[in-house]
Amino acid sequence: MIKRSEVEAAQTKAAALLNNLGVELTAGERADIEVAEFGLGELETTGLELVVYVNTDRYCAKELVLFPRQTCPEHLHPPVGDDPGKMETFRCRWGVVWLYIEGDASFPVHAKVPTGSEDYYTVFNEIELNPGDQYTIPPNTLHWFQAGDDGAVVSEFSSTSRDEFDIFTDPRIKRIPEISDE
Amino acid sequence: MIKRSEVEAAQTKAAALLNNLGVELTAGERADIEVAEFGLGELETTGLELVVYVNTDRYCAKELVLFPRQTCPEHLHPPVGDDPGKMETFRCRWGVVWLYIEGDASFPVHAKVPTGSEDYYTVFNEIELNPGDQYTIPPNTLHWFQAGDDGAVVSEFSSTSRDEFDIFTDPRIKRIPEISDE
Repeated sequence: MIKRSEVEAAQTKAAALLNNLGVELTAGERADIEVAEFGLGELETTGLELVVYVNTDRYCAKELVLFPRQTCPEHLHPPVGDDPGKMETFRCRWGVVWLYIEGDASFPVHAKVPTGSEDYYTVFNEIELNPGDQYTIPPNTLHWFQAGDDGAVVSEFSSTSRDEFDIFTDPRIKRIPEISDE
Repeated sequence: MIKRSEVEAAQTKAAALLNNLGVELTAGERADIEVAEFGLGELETTGLELVVYVNTDRYCAKELVLFPRQTCPEHLHPPVGDDPGKMETFRCRWGVVWLYIEGDASFPVHAKVPTGSEDYYTVFNEIELNPGDQYTIPPNTLHWFQAGDDGAVVSEFSSTSRDEFDIFTDPRIKRIPEISDE
């Protein structure tokens, strides 16, 4: 559950960050910035802000905004019907982002696992993305990511997005935000 | 046919434009900027510069750079095997671009059809795209586009790109560049 006022504050912050980067949004897009709070009640730690440019039955493009050290928690995109699962390419535009996928654990690990959620982070193969770097995550593969100390902006190019089918390692997580009118 | 030196000059110009806009490219991406000259020997008039970020069997993302009044000539993306044809979303990042698709002809038409190629421009339903505006072109639909007086940068999100199957209205056009080593 997240308050309407918190959603609006996060939208304003994300829009300002994109604006500083020269990314133009329409007024409608600014108002529609998705604030994914994941149901843990700690948006600044575990959360993600998204601008969805387009999501058709063939492809999808989004801008992802992460506040300083904000984390998108571990999840995968499973097969859905004939779809083998969402495949996605992350391209870092600004800041630094550490992406973790299945495979040998890296050492050191630069991200800080959110306190109290240690049990729900299980993959530690680190890929560091700086501006201009990109990485393609295969379908049905566990991954999570965290921004560095300044935050980050990441362009996501992918197959069709069906967020409601995402499977999170942490059973407490709700992907679709519930907003209270406060 | 386009000279290697012309390709390199166009790559440098396109990279500078993207850099001014805050779009970071790796050295490899800068060297790989595609200069589509379309075989007419008039790159400044009929041409397009492309950065291909990713092109998988499911989706594709590119940055398109157009110099002042540069035109991407009329073409369509036909069905290929099981693929109904490339579907693409153009999102204007900088400058202005006039996109023409099938449908009622607009009046006035802001683009200038390249001199000597008038017979090969047949659709004039105009969509003006300014920064933050986007438009999705269905598969198998004739379209062409031209930048305004300052040039333009357009992000393209699409299904898989198979440029070699594109069908151009102008039979003189060659989509895949032939480069001479001068």
